[in-house]
Amino acid sequence: MNDPDKLDQVLERFARVPGPKIMVHGGGSHASELCERLGIEPKMVNGRRITDEATLEVVTMVYAGLVNKNLVAQLQAKNLNAVGLSGADGNILPAVKRPVMEIDYGFVGDLQDSGSTSHTLEIMLEHGMVPVCCPLTHDGRGQLLNTNADTIARHLGIALSGQYEVTLVYCLDKPGVLLDPADSQSVLSKLDPGHYQQLAAEGTIDGGMIPKLDNAFAGLKLGIKQIYLCDWQDITGSSGTKITLS
Amino acid sequence: MNDPDKLDQVLERFARVPGPKIMVHGGGSHASELCERLGIEPKMVNGRRITDEATLEVVTMVYAGLVNKNLVAQLQAKNLNAVGLSGADGNILPAVKRPVMEIDYGFVGDLQDSGSTSHTLEIMLEHGMVPVCCPLTHDGRGQLLNTNADTIARHLGIALSGQYEVTLVYCLDKPGVLLDPADSQSVLSKLDPGHYQQLAAEGTIDGGMIPKLDNAFAGLKLGIKQIYLCDWQDITGSSGTKITLS
Repeated sequence: MNDPDKLDQVLERFARVPGPKIMVHGGGSHASELCERLGIEPKMVNGRRITDEATLEVVTMVYAGLVNKNLVAQLQAKNLNAVGLSGADGNILPAVKRPVMEIDYGFVGDLQDSGSTSHTLEIMLEHGMVPVCCPLTHDGRGQLLNTNADTIARHLGIALSGQYEVTLVYCLDKPGVLLDPADSQSVLSKLDPGHYQQLAAEGTIDGGMIPKLDNAFAGLKLGIKQIYLCDWQDITGSSGTKITLS
Repeated sequence: MNDPDKLDQVLERFARVPGPKIMVHGGGSHASELCERLGIEPKMVNGRRITDEATLEVVTMVYAGLVNKNLVAQLQAKNLNAVGLSGADGNILPAVKRPVMEIDYGFVGDLQDSGSTSHTLEIMLEHGMVPVCCPLTHDGRGQLLNTNADTIARHLGIALSGQYEVTLVYCLDKPGVLLDPADSQSVLSKLDPGHYQQLAAEGTIDGGMIPKLDNAFAGLKLGIKQIYLCDWQDITGSSGTKITLS
């Protein structure tokens, strides 16, 4: 998102994807940057942000404000009727504050895959609106919570799979699942659970991909029709790795 | 908005207002605070913020992020189906960047009262959603713009007056239009244009109220059914000043 020309191309491709669609975005690097400007030390454990009160303010400003509204304005410029949402808007993503176990993640929300979604989201999709979702949820009692964008994407995909044939595309900064992390040509066109287990055991698949792939396989099992991992500039998934159950 | 208990009471009252409704909020003091923390000097001319690029980032984060999403989460906790919107979302507030005349206001958007509103807003109201609008608009070409909240409220009121009997309530930090600015008991229950002219000529009505009252009289002339100025803790207008055309 730091390269306006590339971002514009991606949004153009997204605008052309036919049918009802939803965008889920992140913004972690922008949030870290604002934390730094404000003298707030970003705290990460196992790739997840520890969200104290000051950090929650920052991510609320960056995800729901700066990133979300600029995406919405740019999509509107492409005649897409984008509507930016947090999980509190229309109550689309009710969540539970993560219980404190070994680690206190702070204001982090966990979603429960219920297989249904909010009426509000359905109405928006039925009327041609394109929800642009930032990675914030809420607890239904007035508290905003920080939630991983990949998890939100999977959650929405599952929730909507009752009414729609859902295709979920994870856009990465590499062209898909690579057999050789150093060779961007080594992208797998297809990955099933057996192959995944083998590659993970061998250490071929790196740490950052594991939660994404776990999310993807869980999503397929719970109703999502097709899942792709691809370069973020593709956005359709066709150039990347298709996740399959067999 | 700095007193959580008072804010909660106001949101409770807002939640109880029957019928379709919209909230328009500001956030200028929070924006000034963040500007200060970031070392950005707030620039005001005639009570209006000069919005350079850095300031636009700040107001986008504060208005659409911090303030808007916290209001939405708190209204959802009161079982109100709040949906937070900037003027870019659903294209509800297309605007024009203010032309540079004597003053360059920067990224400030002017609205044109067209007497119609976006289809998106109508769909939301028809389906029981409660739009919570922050004071940002967009130019339709991807640029967010900063727009005065009072003006947005008037604009939406006029735009919706074709389909609805609109009541517009301006919530102030005083109980209405005062005959004696030092005496909060001196609130006028009613103000018509003749009386307004007289009080403005005498200097009884202070500078900050003039644009609000100009907005209000213009709104009445362009179709808004009822307009009140009242203490923000009232929110129904009943305790304040009713603006009338005769």
